[in-house]
Amino acid sequence: MFELRRDPIVGRQVFIAEDRASRPNDFLERDSADSADQSPADCPFCAGHEEQTPEAELEVSAATSSWQVRVVPNKFPALSLNQQAFAPQDTSSLESVPQMPLGAHEVIIETPRHVQDITELSPDEVARVLRVYRQRLRDWSEHDSIRYVSIFKNVGVAAGASLEHAHSQLIALPDVPPAIIAELGSAEYYFAKHRKCIFCQVLTEELSHGKRLVFENESFVAFCAYAGRQPYETWIVPRDHNAQFEHLTNEESLQLAAVIQRLVRSLRSRLSRLSYNLMLHTSPFRQDAADYYHWHFELVPRCTQLAGFEWGTGMFINPLSPERAAAALVASAQ
Amino acid sequence: MFELRRDPIVGRQVFIAEDRASRPNDFLERDSADSADQSPADCPFCAGHEEQTPEAELEVSAATSSWQVRVVPNKFPALSLNQQAFAPQDTSSLESVPQMPLGAHEVIIETPRHVQDITELSPDEVARVLRVYRQRLRDWSEHDSIRYVSIFKNVGVAAGASLEHAHSQLIALPDVPPAIIAELGSAEYYFAKHRKCIFCQVLTEELSHGKRLVFENESFVAFCAYAGRQPYETWIVPRDHNAQFEHLTNEESLQLAAVIQRLVRSLRSRLSRLSYNLMLHTSPFRQDAADYYHWHFELVPRCTQLAGFEWGTGMFINPLSPERAAAALVASAQ
Repeated sequence: MFELRRDPIVGRQVFIAEDRASRPNDFLERDSADSADQSPADCPFCAGHEEQTPEAELEVSAATSSWQVRVVPNKFPALSLNQQAFAPQDTSSLESVPQMPLGAHEVIIETPRHVQDITELSPDEVARVLRVYRQRLRDWSEHDSIRYVSIFKNVGVAAGASLEHAHSQLIALPDVPPAIIAELGSAEYYFAKHRKCIFCQVLTEELSHGKRLVFENESFVAFCAYAGRQPYETWIVPRDHNAQFEHLTNEESLQLAAVIQRLVRSLRSRLSRLSYNLMLHTSPFRQDAADYYHWHFELVPRCTQLAGFEWGTGMFINPLSPERAAAALVASAQ
Repeated sequence: MFELRRDPIVGRQVFIAEDRASRPNDFLERDSADSADQSPADCPFCAGHEEQTPEAELEVSAATSSWQVRVVPNKFPALSLNQQAFAPQDTSSLESVPQMPLGAHEVIIETPRHVQDITELSPDEVARVLRVYRQRLRDWSEHDSIRYVSIFKNVGVAAGASLEHAHSQLIALPDVPPAIIAELGSAEYYFAKHRKCIFCQVLTEELSHGKRLVFENESFVAFCAYAGRQPYETWIVPRDHNAQFEHLTNEESLQLAAVIQRLVRSLRSRLSRLSYNLMLHTSPFRQDAADYYHWHFELVPRCTQLAGFEWGTGMFINPLSPERAAAALVASAQ
């Protein structure tokens, strides 16, 4: 069953995506399974196990080798491009008419080798993965029914990973998600008022005082977010204004790979059992946001559990100041 | 350091609350510590260890016994009533002037005995805890500087609990939090349009089709939320329209205790290692929401980790339909 529901009171959007095979009681077990127990022998993402995944949408290979990066449909998708019609409900009800979520859920297998994080890949390999992100965004931009593509990494059990083999996920959506709508809205408002990109302005301020800077290179700046939701939340922002990740150059892919790897290495040296989520924020397709939006990555280490206060209020509690977090990450990189 | 920060782009509110004693590297360890390892001997909440907590704000005792419920200030608060002045920053900056968050963070110790959940308390003991919630809301409503009080329970490590001894938490806030503002806004809008409380209307619909009903008694109805964010997310709503939990009657406290205990027992029979958050949603102080708001509890079992998709988009993926969840909870209560 695939269904997109809106909460009748606050409009919150939830995909109901039942994996019919799994029993309700499996959830906790699956969630708490220690992914470190996995062995390459049963890893569906390793070279030689290609038959354990659906057929690849895209494979990047060198003439001399087998595949280097593979993009396959997720075996347990949250939504799908192939939906049969859905009978609308009694519209006198407060329940929204559930939509069959049209879209796709893909896994980007970052290497044929059984390694657990991008820090174990070469800079060239990471850059290649980033260029596969770019390619899939370009591919999906040609689907009229897709407005936004969310690309993210879950690393470690505490970040929601179920398989340890280095991989990213891609979810193609028919509409722009709430978090991106909120960013676009205030970025457009700021641009209308100041004729300036709000992300460029934040970057200028972070570079000027430098108190939350973590790393920078020719093309990218990494800094701890002023209002980080978790200890060490870090944003990676391109120096050059650009709304769409699809415009990433090959040279930039190498520079971006270097910053991401350096950041994750520093995090590992601070946090013995690092789990993190890495999220790409980029412009929706067919949205004229070139002037005011600025693509970037947000990396959120999962140090503390969201608890009743966060779930009940929508506010966050961060027990480490972003300034101290940045200083610690810089120090650990020395 | 206490600071309330607003994200310069989306306005997200984050409390920066540093526990100076703890080292950044402690977070993961503390988070993943198995609370089941705790022994009553070192439990600061057990009878006889009162000196390990700050002085009690409130103690409920029977003539014949020592205290039965204790309310103490949190030793590691997210905010505090005693804040020194804070130097405003350069206001040309995008950074909001950080506010020193004025408020309080309290722990409600539900029993002198070392038990781990309200299912191990008697119905009378649970009802007494609920009446302490009511009392603290009444107490805080007299502080002009406090607009909202968030009361919640974190049970189990996956729900953010750090101590296993049965307890609740209370955070008194100077402003109404975003999640409650959103509820108030759409409830007020619905009332203006239909002259009806939206929660009463949801309740009517849930009772009429019954497909998500879990339990009901004379005063309360528990049903799985139509757009539940996690498997088994359940709301407990009073049949009688009332905006403020402060108005709970003693008889209702017994009925509410019965529903909460029955619900948690059913969840435990479905989920071998249950972790959950229980959140009270009630009207802000000095807000004329009597007509359109309706207090209730939201219980969210923590079955799956929020991952990159949820953090990046603000949407949720729930792998179990609320209808199947309700059927499973009803069956397990037979």
